Order: sequence, then C-alpha cells, then structure tokens
Amino acid sequence: MRETSTTRDIELNTSSKKGTDLTNATLIANNNQTASAVPCPRGFIAGGTACGIKASGADDLALIVCPNGATVAAMFTRNLVKAAPIVISHKKIGESHGQFRALVINSGCANAATGEQGFDAADAVMDALAARLDVASDQVLMNSTGVIGEQLPFDRIVDALPALVDSCSAEGLTLAARAIHTTDTRLKMAERTVTHAGRTCRVVGIAKGAGMIHPNMATTIGVIMTDAQAPAGMLDRLLRSAVDRSFHRITVDGDTSTNDSVFLMASGEAGEFPEEMLEPAITQVARELAEMVVRDGEGACKLIRVRVSGAATPNDALQVAQTVASSLLVRTSVAGGDPNWGRILAAAGRSGVSIDPQTIALRVNDLPLFADGTPAATPKRALESAYAADDITLDIDLHQGDASDEFLTCDLTEQYVRVNADYTS
Amino acid sequence: MRETSTTRDIELNTSSKKGTDLTNATLIANNNQTASAVPCPRGFIAGGTACGIKASGADDLALIVCPNGATVAAMFTRNLVKAAPIVISHKKIGESHGQFRALVINSGCANAATGEQGFDAADAVMDALAARLDVASDQVLMNSTGVIGEQLPFDRIVDALPALVDSCSAEGLTLAARAIHTTDTRLKMAERTVTHAGRTCRVVGIAKGAGMIHPNMATTIGVIMTDAQAPAGMLDRLLRSAVDRSFHRITVDGDTSTNDSVFLMASGEAGEFPEEMLEPAITQVARELAEMVVRDGEGACKLIRVRVSGAATPNDALQVAQTVASSLLVRTSVAGGDPNWGRILAAAGRSGVSIDPQTIALRVNDLPLFADGTPAATPKRALESAYAADDITLDIDLHQGDASDEFLTCDLTEQYVRVNADYTS
Repeated sequence: MRETSTTRDIELNTSSKKGTDLTNATLIANNNQTASAVPCPRGFIAGGTACGIKASGADDLALIVCPNGATVAAMFTRNLVKAAPIVISHKKIGESHGQFRALVINSGCANAATGEQGFDAADAVMDALAARLDVASDQVLMNSTGVIGEQLPFDRIVDALPALVDSCSAEGLTLAARAIHTTDTRLKMAERTVTHAGRTCRVVGIAKGAGMIHPNMATTIGVIMTDAQAPAGMLDRLLRSAVDRSFHRITVDGDTSTNDSVFLMASGEAGEFPEEMLEPAITQVARELAEMVVRDGEGACKLIRVRVSGAATPNDALQVAQTVASSLLVRTSVAGGDPNWGRILAAAGRSGVSIDPQTIALRVNDLPLFADGTPAATPKRALESAYAADDITLDIDLHQGDASDEFLTCDLTEQYVRVNADYTS
Repeated sequence: MRETSTTRDIELNTSSKKGTDLTNATLIANNNQTASAVPCPRGFIAGGTACGIKASGADDLALIVCPNGATVAAMFTRNLVKAAPIVISHKKIGESHGQFRALVINSGCANAATGEQGFDAADAVMDALAARLDVASDQVLMNSTGVIGEQLPFDRIVDALPALVDSCSAEGLTLAARAIHTTDTRLKMAERTVTHAGRTCRVVGIAKGAGMIHPNMATTIGVIMTDAQAPAGMLDRLLRSAVDRSFHRITVDGDTSTNDSVFLMASGEAGEFPEEMLEPAITQVARELAEMVVRDGEGACKLIRVRVSGAATPNDALQVAQTVASSLLVRTSVAGGDPNWGRILAAAGRSGVSIDPQTIALRVNDLPLFADGTPAATPKRALESAYAADDITLDIDLHQGDASDEFLTCDLTEQYVRVNADYTS
C-alpha cells in the first residue's frame, strides 16, 4: 500500500472567531486557492451557499451529492436530546439497505429542542431537495448545527436549494466545508490516497468543530468520502474504528452537542479495496480532522497532547489521559505558559484510576517534571520555555503496566469565555 | 430549639483576585471591624500572621488552639495525590481516641507532591508547635494550601510560631480565616447558636475556597468549631451529614485538590446537646460556607443554583444537577447574560440519566424556557432580564418521579482564566 497525504488547514482569519468578520472577498480568495486542490472523490460533487440563517450573511448551507448513489455509515450523538435532522437521518440509515444520494447540512440553527415543528421543518427541506434532485426523499440525509432551541427557517433553505444545487461540482468541497462552520476560524479538510493492484482510491474528509467537543460519541460534524466500494457493514466497522481513535480522543469543553455526527460515504466508483488498506487511510483522515478541530478550539492558541503510558489497562490509560486533558486548571496553566505541573498530578490523582504518586512520572516536551514521588530538578526557566511552545506534549508514565493512550485538547483562554458568553446575543 | 444566625461574608477587595493588592491597611481595617463580631466558641482561640511564604507579604499562617483539648472529626480529599500534612493528620485522627490541642494551616504552599522532604517539613512544624504549646506532638494537626509541587519553607513557619501563638485570642478567628486564603477575595465565616434547656452553644465556621472546587470529597478547607460536647462517633456523623449537603454540592472548576479537608472540632465547654439539635446548626453553617465559596469562585460574578425536581431517584436528581452545574457552556452563557438555554437541555441530555426531552421542563428564575418538547413563548427580552440577575436559579423538572437535589456553581468568566493562567508566575 502506498499513501500520499495532503492536509488542508487553511486559516481564514485569526483576528476574530466571528463569521461576521470573514469578508466574502477573503473567503472567495481562499476558495480559489484551494477549490481545485482537494477535489471530491469520484462519484461525489459538493457545494455551499448562503440562505440567510446566519445574520452575518456568511454561507450557511452545504450539500454533498452522490449522483449514482453512495453507501453511508454514520455515528450520531449519544446525547438524549437529539436534533430533529439527526433523529430522521438515523432512522433512514437504519431502515435503508440501499444507496443515498445527498447530504444537506445547514449551520446557524441546530434544529434541536424544537418539537414537532422541527421535525416537519427538516422533512420539508429533505423533501424539497429530493424533488429538486429527482430522487426519493428517503435517499436524502440532513444535519444542522448552531443554536439549540430556535426553529429552523426551512423556507429560506428551500428557497436557496436551486442555488445550492447549482454550486455543486467536483471542485466544490471547500464551499461545503466552509458552509458548515459555526465558530470555526479554519477550514478543516484532509485526504489520503490508497493504491492497490495498480488502482487508486481516495479518502477525503471535511469537519466543523470549535466548541461543544467531548468524547461521548462523534462530537462535531464530520463527513468522510471515498470512491472505494464498501458494503454497509464494512463501512460501519471502518467508521467506528476511525472515530474511536480520533473524534473520541479529543476534548474542547466537555460538552456534547445535540447534533454531533460523523458520516462515512462510499461511492464505489474506484472499485473494491481490501478493508485493511482502507482502515489506516480513513483513520488518518479522521485523526487529522480531529486534531484540526482541537487546534481551532474556541479561543485556543496551543495544542495539548496528553500521552499516558505504563498503565495497567487500556481503560486506565484512557481515563487518566481524558481526566488530565479535561482539567480546566491544566488547560489554563498552559494558556498562561505557567509550568504549574502539580495540577497535572492532581488531575491524575482524581481520575478514578489507582495511580501511585510514588511511581508516576511526568514530563513536558521531554523535560522531567516529577518522578519517584518528588519534583524533578529541571530549572524553572527551562519549564517555562517548554510551556511557551505552541504544541505541548504532557507525558504521564504510570509505571504500572504496558497500556497507553493519547488525548488531545487545547489551552483554555479568555477568548474561549468571550466566544461563549454571547453566542446567541 | 432556637437558632440565631450571623453571616460574615466580608468583601476585602473586589478590584483584584491577587493577595498582593490587599494592603495591610485594608486588612487591618477589616479585621478591626469584624474581629469582635465573631468570637470563637468557648474553648477555642485563634490567630494568624505572615511568615513569608507568600511573596506578597500577606498573612499565610493560621492557628486554632483548644487549650483544654477538643474532639476532632475530619474529612479529607479523595484525590490519590494527598498532601503530606493531610496524610499525617489523617493518620493522627485515625489512631487517636483522645483530644487535639491545635490545628495549624499555612497558605501559599500545598506541600503536596513533595516526597519525604514534605513529610519531614510538616512534622517539623507540628513538633515545633507542640513544643511551643507544651503539648504532645500527636495532639497537633496541620494542613496546607497553595501551589502543588513546591517544598514547604518550614523554617519560616517555625520562626513565626511565637508570633502566631501570640496572635491567638477568642476574638482572633478573622485573622485565621484570612491567613488561609489563596485566591479568595472575601472572608468566609458563618455561625449558628443553639439553645436547649436554658443552655446555649455556638457553631462557628471558617473556610477558604475559590478554585479547585468539585464535589468528590470535602473540597476547599473548612474548619467548624463548637463548644458543644460530642463524642468522636457523633461528630463524625454530624460532619458527614453536613458536608454531603454543602461542600459536596458545589462546583467551581471540576478539579479536586490534594489538600481538601473539612474539620469539625468540639471543645465540650458548653455541655451536651442533642444530636438532632446540633445537626441542623452544623449543616447550615457548612451550607453557608459552601455558598460563600461559590460566590467567591475565581472570577465569579453570579451564583447559579441548579435545582432538579421530578427525578426518578435521588441519584438521578444529583447527576443531572451536577452535570448542568459543571457545564462550561451553561456557565459562560450566564457570564454573558445570554439566555442560550439549549445548553441546559443539552447538558441534561448527556448526564447519563434517562431524561425524556418530551417531558422535561426548564425555567430560569421562574420564567418558562422549555416544556412539552418545545421552546416556551417567554419573550427573549424577559429571559435576558432574568439572565442579567446576580443570582440565577435554573429549575429542571424531569417529570419522572419525586426525587430532587440542588447544586451550586458560579458563572465562568474571562477573569477565571486570568486568575488561573498565571497562578505561579
């Protein structure tokens, strides 16, 4: 197997988290730069447009079309409060043994906690899109992202469907990737190419993230497409394996949304590929997208990688990594460049895992922090340099066994609070 | 039973969270105002001084002395990383059937993750204090609070012991309450008086808090004193009952410390009182202290009271209340005065409790937010007024049973991040 990798993590605007500050000129320039760089896999076209849900006028409607159909696997939020489009799409995928033709996603309104009216609104959009594409309504999927508890202005979406469909092309994935943004500041796209027996298939993914990111189901919205052929059962295995090592290993704020979902769509136009060759490609795309979500965490400046080794069990390793990565005190100390490593130890100590303070060893970017029950002799100046880096790796060796795991998070900054204090205002 | 209540929640300085900004002049003025207002219960004297651990020169050493001895019950952190003084004091209380004579607490250094050297330092302080007071060393208890992973400058404490002992008086509790502060901005003192059969006893408590507050053991440092007589077993029951309804029902940042502890000390000088009369007085003092800790949460401006009713089980009620109170998104929306109530619903939905989105009802300060699966018709302007209040009560009725619970937290502000980003720098 040979793989080639291209990553798209294009900064739209670092001066602000608000879509309102992203001028159309900027966006078009970015799109022009990248639209041809990451074409859809064969069998897919994509596009995006503005339908007026976002007051800023930014694009808020994305579409992926599979003209000849695609097999679809999906993972949805485990939150008991599920958005209407999630409930409907989940049901369609569960009942279907066939192919899907389109996935439409709006941003700016989550269509969650909206009662019967919300279900009717989602159905109205899917029905209208099916009519426009001349396919059956049960071949159309939908998701939404944005504010919870506001009714979806479905008429605006329906009115924009002709322009949305017209925007779709093999080169239009950037439009779709941007139209699903909420507080995102960067486009999130990743791809891998797999070659086998002289044939090539591609795996291409887009994601949105930024807030309400926590590993209890997929978190964020992700769409991964491939032109490989794969039956539904295999797609389902591939997706679960990939998500477990990517979107299930990141945290931004500990909250899970009503709309979290990751879709894996296979058009089949590149033919069959062995599952063991697709698996690493899909997982790597998912991991890159997940890392981009963390790097673009609301208000985030630094990526924090928490690596736990020497755990007695895989679950112990995960539990310690997740607890440390979720600690507000650890994350604020990284934001401040303050090597207050006692907080890492304290978080490990409350993780529920039987750590031993006498054997646990801590390092930051390879500098010793704590071992043998006592602070390391690393000079504070060296620690401050390590904490000043953009990428911080915290290594925690429990010295209890061979299991390991890794969790990603970002620093917690004042900007995080600003972004979230007036989200709907 | 008749109870009288006096609450002390004296603002030291609202312009900053830093002890460095609290001038001695201000502190002395405050002490003069309040020192005589909350005397110790009979059988206790207290005081505080500066020994030079805090670079600011603020008081960092507190002492409570029971000249004729006191029975002591205590609850300590469940964090597996326990500070040296906690480990030693826990052992002393466990092994003792007798009376304790003194409790010394320093701030500015937690003496946690400090190895053998940390244990030796704590022992050195307790031994020197015992010698100074002419009591046995196993009658002296200690705790510390402050930065984790730095060695305790025990020589400075030992040098300051004469001045510390001299500062003690029946009116000196304010000195002690202030000397245990870390990022606290307000003194936290509460009292109740119990009258029975013509006799009176008092229950007086002090606490420190502000950060690393989460209900998995006592959280913060609290000391509750009474001149009632109570055997160790009864004291233990009284303390556990009180903490379960106070310090176990608050969250500021989800972290638990290496030094959390609550002490309940009984001098016995007021004679015996029925347990059922002491219980509400001690619980009310603990609840007032816990609420003061939340109100003084790092960067906090608003108190958030999450009340869950209609739960199928008490554990369900607690779980939903705790999850909502711990949600960063709920807490930032309150900070911003933004009635983004969908986040409350989403937090309840990921709590692990089988809530039903069709029956759950939400209210903020008695205004309907959501019921019967749909948003309430309350005008947004009214909701914004409710969210602008200093005290926000979020009512969540699950309509599944009769169990209820309540959890306190504070809003999450930019100031929280500022306080914690450069704590040791």
